[in-house]
Amino acid sequence: MENKLPLDTARFLQDLDTLREIGRSNGTGVHRPTFSPQDMESRHWLVREMQQAGLDASIDGIGNVFGRHRGPGPHILSGSHLETQNHGGWLDGVLGVVAALALARAGLPVDVCAYCDEEGHWGDFIGSRSLIGELSDADIDRAKNRHDGSPLREALRTAGLEGKPRLRLEDGRYKGAFELHIEQGTQLENAGLRIGVITGIVGIRQWRIIVEGQQDHTGGTTMAERKDAGLTAVRILAAIDNEFPRVAGPRSVWTTGRIVLHPNSPQIIPGRAEISFSFRDLSPEIMADMERCMHAVVQESNRRDRCPARLEAIGHASPAPCDPAMQAALTDAAQELCPNAWQAMPSGAIHDSQVLARKLPVAMLFVPSIRGISHHHAEDTKREDLALGLEVLAEGARRFLR
Amino acid sequence: MENKLPLDTARFLQDLDTLREIGRSNGTGVHRPTFSPQDMESRHWLVREMQQAGLDASIDGIGNVFGRHRGPGPHILSGSHLETQNHGGWLDGVLGVVAALALARAGLPVDVCAYCDEEGHWGDFIGSRSLIGELSDADIDRAKNRHDGSPLREALRTAGLEGKPRLRLEDGRYKGAFELHIEQGTQLENAGLRIGVITGIVGIRQWRIIVEGQQDHTGGTTMAERKDAGLTAVRILAAIDNEFPRVAGPRSVWTTGRIVLHPNSPQIIPGRAEISFSFRDLSPEIMADMERCMHAVVQESNRRDRCPARLEAIGHASPAPCDPAMQAALTDAAQELCPNAWQAMPSGAIHDSQVLARKLPVAMLFVPSIRGISHHHAEDTKREDLALGLEVLAEGARRFLR
Repeated sequence: MENKLPLDTARFLQDLDTLREIGRSNGTGVHRPTFSPQDMESRHWLVREMQQAGLDASIDGIGNVFGRHRGPGPHILSGSHLETQNHGGWLDGVLGVVAALALARAGLPVDVCAYCDEEGHWGDFIGSRSLIGELSDADIDRAKNRHDGSPLREALRTAGLEGKPRLRLEDGRYKGAFELHIEQGTQLENAGLRIGVITGIVGIRQWRIIVEGQQDHTGGTTMAERKDAGLTAVRILAAIDNEFPRVAGPRSVWTTGRIVLHPNSPQIIPGRAEISFSFRDLSPEIMADMERCMHAVVQESNRRDRCPARLEAIGHASPAPCDPAMQAALTDAAQELCPNAWQAMPSGAIHDSQVLARKLPVAMLFVPSIRGISHHHAEDTKREDLALGLEVLAEGARRFLR
Repeated sequence: MENKLPLDTARFLQDLDTLREIGRSNGTGVHRPTFSPQDMESRHWLVREMQQAGLDASIDGIGNVFGRHRGPGPHILSGSHLETQNHGGWLDGVLGVVAALALARAGLPVDVCAYCDEEGHWGDFIGSRSLIGELSDADIDRAKNRHDGSPLREALRTAGLEGKPRLRLEDGRYKGAFELHIEQGTQLENAGLRIGVITGIVGIRQWRIIVEGQQDHTGGTTMAERKDAGLTAVRILAAIDNEFPRVAGPRSVWTTGRIVLHPNSPQIIPGRAEISFSFRDLSPEIMADMERCMHAVVQESNRRDRCPARLEAIGHASPAPCDPAMQAALTDAAQELCPNAWQAMPSGAIHDSQVLARKLPVAMLFVPSIRGISHHHAEDTKREDLALGLEVLAEGARRFLR
């Protein structure tokens, strides 16, 4: 049977090295934001490699690179994303794409996909949402670049994708969707393990907290007169720091990744503060508790402080449990290929698999991140762990397809 | 005697309107950063006006515009600054310059000066420090633009000031230095008063607090593993918010004007945070207490938190009491021209007078700021208050010169 071709791990590693050169940045990192010339170069590279692997390959109207297996099913879907965070690392996303390509080369009945813009330069999972039919043309009309505000439509035109059809997943074609990814944390490394079989992908709620004050000169305005939006923002974040541990679960995380004061000048009292805050958990109940807590903190701030604060919901994803049969196939594969050097674990990071989970059974596999670093040029994984990840993925997929 | 020429308040108000057009921004504001083409245009305008007023006028090698009275003394020095904060207001600084010009036109024995870069685009009072001999060539070599990091030497070259001599205040020439300024606060407005006679200028300490963490993906890194530099920064600022009221005086102020997280991206744990923090008071003892408190907060953070924080001193100015005889002259003038509509008060804002106070007796006069707004296009003062400010300044100077 054709899915018994050998798995070419050397070529898989070589593919990773090849893609690292497209947009190389800061020595060891990669800068390949979605629809940049470097990003499009990597997509066209992938189309050629898919065609050489015998897949029916194309880039669709939202930037998804899709390689369709020409033979009979049952089929699986596998992939991840090609673009990087600005000045990010070489493995985040790319690993899952080239691993899926290696599965196709080994003859597995796999459709390979690079879901476009998982990193959110232009929105919220536009590639995988388009594939499952949950991205409208109006969504595309509205979408803007999160860094410079330029319209997505313009970027699609520049990238040569304007007017191309958008692909939809074919109903009933897939038994499930696999995704190999780097951990982006230190759980595996700290436990001395080489493989993580994912039990589920955490949900995420993303918020903007906006505080309005009054911009004033720092010297002429007494403490009693001030409306310091930055100070109110600090008090809100300190309250979250105090209150969240009371409602959070053991694996919950919450983060303020971005603070923007206006005008952000040493001798001017901030007239406005904008905070990007998010939290994650596998349990919908715990997420609801955290959300209530956040609202209570903002409400209490508005009762007590003189600068009004308001919450804007930016995005959310529901927790997505992984498919038990797919998990079992990966677990068996891991136990065969690296006995007792693997563990079951949740994914704290959000991935396209979470979007796909709305339509398909999904499963994910992690390899360790050295020192847990990702979204940074120091992002790395041992080459033997990369190769092992591919082997466990392939063996798990074969077991699942039996 | 020539200092009995009438005071031309109409022309003084017209000068303010003229300068408002040079770099007009956001409708009612002015954008005239030091050495920008607009800033240099305003300096050349001032030279011409000084010459027409009979002064011996020039721009020196650091950008100070100096108009020297040609007649006999005793002399006074008067002025303020011409440049604005980025997208700032029309009165901050400019008021004191055109008021001094009006004094010269009225025949008072005044040297008029626009001290360069009080707003600190390039450093810390480079103009007035140069005048009193406390700015070295090495200081100039090192100075960079605080917004884009470009070198001061290059800006001086572009502005046509390279190689010009730097002026020094002539020893023994002055009985004292006066400065008229907007309040940049709401003390006068709230009390229904029109003139503030300044008792002293507060001291200021400016610090940078730098926190080093570990940049990581928000989803893959558990709370226990994180080194979130932004969170440590928030805790430090919350501790300052709690502790400073215990050591501060009734007029102390403290401000975080600027927070910069790196990379400041919603889904990345901040690997670095930089805070610009400053505090002000008239009392050296209270300032010393606040400084001890700030060090203790950072020390406690370093004992408890996992992201190390360090303090860098950026700048400081000592409190500067105003000269009693000059204050008395202004007080008498205010009581004559606006009986019971004035008060004595400290200046919470730093001004060039504070630098000049190291060499000369100084005094300052405030007019109200509408709603206390400054460093903003809404900065404004009633025209009758501007005119009254000029009249009190002139009458005070005449009384002091008697």
